[in-house]
Amino acid sequence: MPGNTFGQYFRITTWGESHGPALGVVIDGCPPGLVLDEAVIQKTLDKRRPGKGGAAESPRKEPDQVKILSGIFEGHTTGTPILLIIRNQDAQSRAYDQLRDVFRPGHGDYTYWKKYGIRDHRGGGRASGRETAARVAAAAVAQVFLNTVGISVIAYTVALGKVKAQKRDLDAVKQNRLFCPDLKAAKKMEERITDVRSRGDSVGGIVEILATGVPPGLGEPVFDKLDAELAKGLMSIGAVKGVEIGAGFRAAELLGSENNDPLAPEGFLSNNSGGILAGISNGDYLVVRTAVKPIPSISKEQDTMTVSEKPVKLKVGGRHDASAIPRIVHVCEAMVRLVLTDHILRARALTPEIFGPKFF
Amino acid sequence: MPGNTFGQYFRITTWGESHGPALGVVIDGCPPGLVLDEAVIQKTLDKRRPGKGGAAESPRKEPDQVKILSGIFEGHTTGTPILLIIRNQDAQSRAYDQLRDVFRPGHGDYTYWKKYGIRDHRGGGRASGRETAARVAAAAVAQVFLNTVGISVIAYTVALGKVKAQKRDLDAVKQNRLFCPDLKAAKKMEERITDVRSRGDSVGGIVEILATGVPPGLGEPVFDKLDAELAKGLMSIGAVKGVEIGAGFRAAELLGSENNDPLAPEGFLSNNSGGILAGISNGDYLVVRTAVKPIPSISKEQDTMTVSEKPVKLKVGGRHDASAIPRIVHVCEAMVRLVLTDHILRARALTPEIFGPKFF
Amino acid sequence: MPGNTFGQYFRITTWGESHGPALGVVIDGCPPGLVLDEAVIQKTLDKRRPGKGGAAESPRKEPDQVKILSGIFEGHTTGTPILLIIRNQDAQSRAYDQLRDVFRPGHGDYTYWKKYGIRDHRGGGRASGRETAARVAAAAVAQVFLNTVGISVIAYTVALGKVKAQKRDLDAVKQNRLFCPDLKAAKKMEERITDVRSRGDSVGGIVEILATGVPPGLGEPVFDKLDAELAKGLMSIGAVKGVEIGAGFRAAELLGSENNDPLAPEGFLSNNSGGILAGISNGDYLVVRTAVKPIPSISKEQDTMTVSEKPVKLKVGGRHDASAIPRIVHVCEAMVRLVLTDHILRARALTPEIFGPKFF
Amino acid sequence: MPGNTFGQYFRITTWGESHGPALGVVIDGCPPGLVLDEAVIQKTLDKRRPGKGGAAESPRKEPDQVKILSGIFEGHTTGTPILLIIRNQDAQSRAYDQLRDVFRPGHGDYTYWKKYGIRDHRGGGRASGRETAARVAAAAVAQVFLNTVGISVIAYTVALGKVKAQKRDLDAVKQNRLFCPDLKAAKKMEERITDVRSRGDSVGGIVEILATGVPPGLGEPVFDKLDAELAKGLMSIGAVKGVEIGAGFRAAELLGSENNDPLAPEGFLSNNSGGILAGISNGDYLVVRTAVKPIPSISKEQDTMTVSEKPVKLKVGGRHDASAIPRIVHVCEAMVRLVLTDHILRARALTPEIFGPKFF
Repeated sequence: MPGNTFGQYFRITTWGESHGPALGVVIDGCPPGLVLDEAVIQKTLDKRRPGKGGAAESPRKEPDQVKILSGIFEGHTTGTPILLIIRNQDAQSRAYDQLRDVFRPGHGDYTYWKKYGIRDHRGGGRASGRETAARVAAAAVAQVFLNTVGISVIAYTVALGKVKAQKRDLDAVKQNRLFCPDLKAAKKMEERITDVRSRGDSVGGIVEILATGVPPGLGEPVFDKLDAELAKGLMSIGAVKGVEIGAGFRAAELLGSENNDPLAPEGFLSNNSGGILAGISNGDYLVVRTAVKPIPSISKEQDTMTVSEKPVKLKVGGRHDASAIPRIVHVCEAMVRLVLTDHILRARALTPEIFGPKFF
Repeated sequence: MPGNTFGQYFRITTWGESHGPALGVVIDGCPPGLVLDEAVIQKTLDKRRPGKGGAAESPRKEPDQVKILSGIFEGHTTGTPILLIIRNQDAQSRAYDQLRDVFRPGHGDYTYWKKYGIRDHRGGGRASGRETAARVAAAAVAQVFLNTVGISVIAYTVALGKVKAQKRDLDAVKQNRLFCPDLKAAKKMEERITDVRSRGDSVGGIVEILATGVPPGLGEPVFDKLDAELAKGLMSIGAVKGVEIGAGFRAAELLGSENNDPLAPEGFLSNNSGGILAGISNGDYLVVRTAVKPIPSISKEQDTMTVSEKPVKLKVGGRHDASAIPRIVHVCEAMVRLVLTDHILRARALTPEIFGPKFF
Repeated sequence: MPGNTFGQYFRITTWGESHGPALGVVIDGCPPGLVLDEAVIQKTLDKRRPGKGGAAESPRKEPDQVKILSGIFEGHTTGTPILLIIRNQDAQSRAYDQLRDVFRPGHGDYTYWKKYGIRDHRGGGRASGRETAARVAAAAVAQVFLNTVGISVIAYTVALGKVKAQKRDLDAVKQNRLFCPDLKAAKKMEERITDVRSRGDSVGGIVEILATGVPPGLGEPVFDKLDAELAKGLMSIGAVKGVEIGAGFRAAELLGSENNDPLAPEGFLSNNSGGILAGISNGDYLVVRTAVKPIPSISKEQDTMTVSEKPVKLKVGGRHDASAIPRIVHVCEAMVRLVLTDHILRARALTPEIFGPKFF
Repeated sequence: MPGNTFGQYFRITTWGESHGPALGVVIDGCPPGLVLDEAVIQKTLDKRRPGKGGAAESPRKEPDQVKILSGIFEGHTTGTPILLIIRNQDAQSRAYDQLRDVFRPGHGDYTYWKKYGIRDHRGGGRASGRETAARVAAAAVAQVFLNTVGISVIAYTVALGKVKAQKRDLDAVKQNRLFCPDLKAAKKMEERITDVRSRGDSVGGIVEILATGVPPGLGEPVFDKLDAELAKGLMSIGAVKGVEIGAGFRAAELLGSENNDPLAPEGFLSNNSGGILAGISNGDYLVVRTAVKPIPSISKEQDTMTVSEKPVKLKVGGRHDASAIPRIVHVCEAMVRLVLTDHILRARALTPEIFGPKFF
C-alpha cells in the first residue's frame, strides 16, 4: 500500500506538490449530517498560512484559499468523499534552479532521488511543508466532528532551541505569535528567532499537544494503540524527530511507585501516563510532545554533493522559515485531531452501545 | 479495522492471552523460498524468554517452545501464511484472583474494562507482556529475510533509571545480562535493579536500536514514512512512552547548521538524522531510541479503586519483572526488523528495478 | 497486502495446508460480550465435514474438531483476537507422490508453481478445499453476532449439472443430503452424482444463498458495495466461476420496466434487485447465486504435462468428492455471513445512530 | 474503512457527485518514470464521454476535460499521488427537482437515504454513472503501465437484451457504436435500442472483457484471488448484476472431463478456466463477462413512493441513456486494467525475481 493515506475510517489521502498547480486532500469516511462550509476550514487554515510576516516565517505569500469540490449537500456532509483543493499561487520555481542537480543537506532531495529515480526539485516537491496545509484542512473537518462529542485539542510551543516555557498558561497561547503558553518565554523565543534568522541559520523546538474531553476506551490494541497511532501521525510530520506521551523520556528515570498514576473514584490522581494506559485512553487529559528539528534550508554555506556525486558548497536560497515553529504547532494539532476522530469511529464499529450516540 | 495486525505486506497478526492455552502469530506475506525451521525461531525466542533468573526477571518459567503449523514445505517458506504457536505452561491464574475486581495502577485493567465492558484479569490478558513473544517469533522469520539482503538489527540498553551507558561498545552487549554496550554501566545497572527489586519497586530505562546495511530509499511518504512506522511499531510495545530518531529531542535545541548532516561522495559526514531524511532511509545507520517506563506491577502499597469504584489499597502479588529491561530490548529489536522487512517489500512493489534482486 | 485476510472490521485470516499439521483462522474485530463456545462452532463445522459418506463425498475422514485458543473469557468474547484451530488427522500424503512433478488439469498446481516457484503438492496444499473449513468456523462466530441482530442466512443447491430445482421449499433443504429445496430434484441429483462418480468423473452445479432480516443501508459505495463484496467473497471460493445478484444474468435480457422493482409503503413489490440497490441493501431479501465448476480431480485419464514440461497422461488418484456440491453450500453460506457481519460493523462506525443498538 | 478506494497498491480513490462542481480521482502507488500527459488520459476518456449522440445515449453534453494536478514532473510520473479532476459543466439540476422527495425505482435513492439519512438527489449524486468517468481516467494511467509489460485489455458487447453476438471479430469492435464484435448483431442492437428508447424504456446486456499478455502468477490466494478481485471490481459498477469467468455459469452444467483444460508444453489446449486457476492467472487469455441490467431511469410511468412513504406514480424526466451499453463497456475495461495493474505490483512485492523487470 502506498503511503499517502492516513486513518482507517476517517481516512485522508493528501496529494500535491509545493510548486504544482494545487494541493489538497480527499476525506473518505466523514460521518454524514455535519454542518460544514469552506469558511470553517478556511479559518483553521489561516492559522497555519505562510506570509503573515512573523519573525520565523517565509516571505512566500499564499492565500491558501480552500474549495470544497464534493461531499457536501445543502451545507451538510453526506457521508461521501470530501475533496478539498488549495491552489498554489506564489510558487517561484526559478529560485530553485540552483537545486536541480544538488542535494540539500538535511532534506529529502537525496532520499527521494534514491527511492524513485526521479524527483521534483522545486520547493521540495511532495516533501515540502506545504503538504501539511492539506492535513490542517482535513483536520478542520475532523474538528467539526469532535465538537459534536466534546473533544478539544490545543497545541503550543514549549521550547524553542534552549528557551523553554516555564508554565502552561493556555490563555497566553493565542496572545503571542509563537503560541507559547508563557508570555515571558515567548518574548525570548521571538528574540531568539530574529537572532538566528539574522545569522542565516534556523532553530528547532518542542511542541506539546493537549486534548481534553477524550473518553476512556479509544485505541485498538495491540498495534493500533492510541499512543502508537499518535506517534505515527506526529512522526509523519516532516521536521519531527521524537514523540513522547505523558512523562515520556522522563519516565525512564522514574520508579514504578513514582510513575504509576493512582486511580480514585474521582479520576486519576496524577497523569504521568499522558492519558493512555495499555494503548487505550483512560479519560484523563491526553498529553503528547514532539521534538522539532531546525529547518534544514539555511543560507549559511554547507558541504554537500551534486547528483553526479561531486562535492560542492551550497547556500540555500529561496524563501524559508527560520523555524518550523510556530507553524508546525497547527500541524501537530491537526494530526491529533485526525487520530482521535479515526479512533472514535473505529470504537463505534465494535461497541456502538459504548461509543455510540448515547455515550457522548 | 481492528488493531492486532502490523505491517502492510509482511503482515503479522498476533493472538493469545497471558493465561489462555496458547499465544502466537500468523505471518502473511513472507516471501517464498526462505530456509526456515523451528530451531531458528526458537533461538531468537530464547533470548526474550522469562525465567532465566536474571535480577530483573519474573520467576514465571515458560519454555516458550514455538511450533510452526503452516507455510513451510520441505524446510522452505512457500509464500502462504505461517502460523507460529507457543503454549502457555506456567500460568498460575489463581495468583490473580485478588485482581478480579480491582484496577492495578499503571495497567490496562481500567482501560480494557472501559473499552470492552469485559476483561480477562488473569495476568493482564491480552495486555500482558507475554504477547510480545509472538512479535519476537515473527521477527525471527523477518530476520531470515533480512539476512538475504544484508541488514542487521541490534538493540541494547543505554539507560536504566538514572544509570546511563557512557559508550557504545557493541561487543559488550552480549557479555552482560542487561545487554548494555558499556560493561561498567552494566554492573551499576544490575546493582540498581537488585536494589529496586528488594524495595518492592520497579525502574524504567532507555533502549537504543541500531540497524546497519539499510539501503537508501525505504519508507513511503508522506504518512507511512520509515520514522513514522518505526515510531508506531515501537510505541505499540506496552511499556514504551517515547520514541526518538537520531538526535531526537536533542535536535530541538540545535541550530540548522549544527543539525544538518553534510553529504559527501563517501556518505554522510554525521548522523543526526538517524539515517532517515524526509521519512526515507538515506543509507546511513538507522538509530532509534525508546523510553521505557517502570513496570507498574509493584509490591509496594498503592492507592486504587475497585470495579465498583470504591477506593482500596493494593499490593500487587503475582510474579513480575523489576524492569521491562532487558527483556524489552528484544522486543524493540523485533519491531525494527518487522518494519524494515515490510518496507523492503513495499519498495519492491513500486520499483523492483531499484529494490529487486539486483539491488541487494 | 497479502491475500489471506477477508473483511475490514470483522476480519479473518485463514492459515494452514491440507496436509500440514493443522489449519485454522484468526478472527480480529469480533464484538465483545457474545456467548461463544466450541460446541457452537463445531455444530456448524460438522455440516461441512467430509467423510459422512454421501454419494458426492471424499472418503477422507476428518473429525474437524475445532479448538478455541484465545479471545474468550468465561464463555464470552472479549473483543480480542479469536484463534480457531483444527488438526488434520487423516492426511494420506503418500497418495499424492504421483503428483510431485505433474500438474493436474483444472487445479492450481501450475499457477502456484509459476507464482511462488515452490509448491506443496500434497492434497493441493493451501489451494485445497480444506482451507474452507476455517472459513466455515469463522462464519459460525459471525452467525452468533448475526443472531443478535436478527439476520439469517441459508444456502441451498438449485442445480446439479443439468438437473435443476423447480421450487424453493426451504423446509426441504434439510431433508436431503444435497440441501436442495426441491425433494424430487434432490433425488435426481443424487442419482446423477452416483452415475458421474461411477464413471470417474465429476459434475458442477449452482448454489443460491438467501439472507433474511438484512436491514436497509449495508454496503459502502462506491467500491465496497454490498454486491461487490459478496461477489469477491463468493468468487474467492475455489470452485466458483460465477456470481449473480437477484435477476443476475437474466436482467441483461429485461427491459427497465420489467426489471425495476416498484417501491410501496409496505416494501418492494418484486425483488429483481436481489435486495441490493446502488450497492446498498434495500431491506428486502438478499438473493445471490454462484456457479460451481465440476471438481477437477477425476480418475478419468487426462492430458497434462510435468514440471519439466513433458506431456504426460494422468489419472488423478487420492480421495476426492464427485462434486463440490453439497459441501460448498456451507462455504457459500459462510461467506455471506462474513460479508454481512463485516458490513454491519462498518455501517456502525459511520452512523451508530442508525446502525447502533437502537436500530436492531 | 470507507468504500471509495480500490486496489491495494495501485490504489485509487474517486470523489465527486454528478451535479457537484467536479469529480475526479487520486491515484496513489503509480510507479515512477512513466511518460504521462493529459492527452493520453483524455483519449481514453473521450470514448466513455456522454453526448456523442449514439442511439443509446443521454443528451447531456459533458466535455469531460481532464486535468492533472499532481504527481507529474517534466512529463513523467514521480511515484507521488496523481490527482485527476474533471469539471461538471452541463449539470441541469433543476430537472431533478421532481425527485427531491420521491424514490426512483431501481435506483439508489431509497438505499442512500436509509444509509446516510441525507442524500443528494440531483442526478443520483454519488451513485450516478458519472462517477465512473473517474475510474476510466485512472485506468488510462494504469494502461500506460500495462503497456510497459505487454498487457492489453479490450471489452465489447456480446448481448443487448436478447440480441446476441454470434462471433468474436475483434476488428469489428471499433467499427460500430455498440462495440459489438459482430457487425450483423451490432446492427440489430442499434435497432433494438432505438425501439426501446422510443417506448420510453431501457434495456440491459452483456459485456465481455478479454485481456491478453497476462503472465501466469497474478492473484493473491486465498481471498484476493484474481477472479475474486475482478468480480468485486466489476460488480462495483452500478448496473452490473452478475460476473462470470471463463465458462462461468455454463461450467455448472459440465462434467470435470469436459471442463478441465488440458495442459501441454505449448500452453492450455482449451480455456474454460478463463485464464485463472485457483485464483491465479495461468498465462492464457483472461475472459470475463458481466451482466448489465437495464437503466432504471425510464419515462414510462412506474409505481413508487415518496420520502414520507406515500404511494405515487412517477415518470422519470431528465436526460438518460436508453442502455448502459455501450458506455459501460469502457468502465468494464477500466476495472480490469485497474485490477491487473494492482496485482502486478502486489506480485512484485513478494517475488521481484519472478515479477520484476527481468520477467516482462
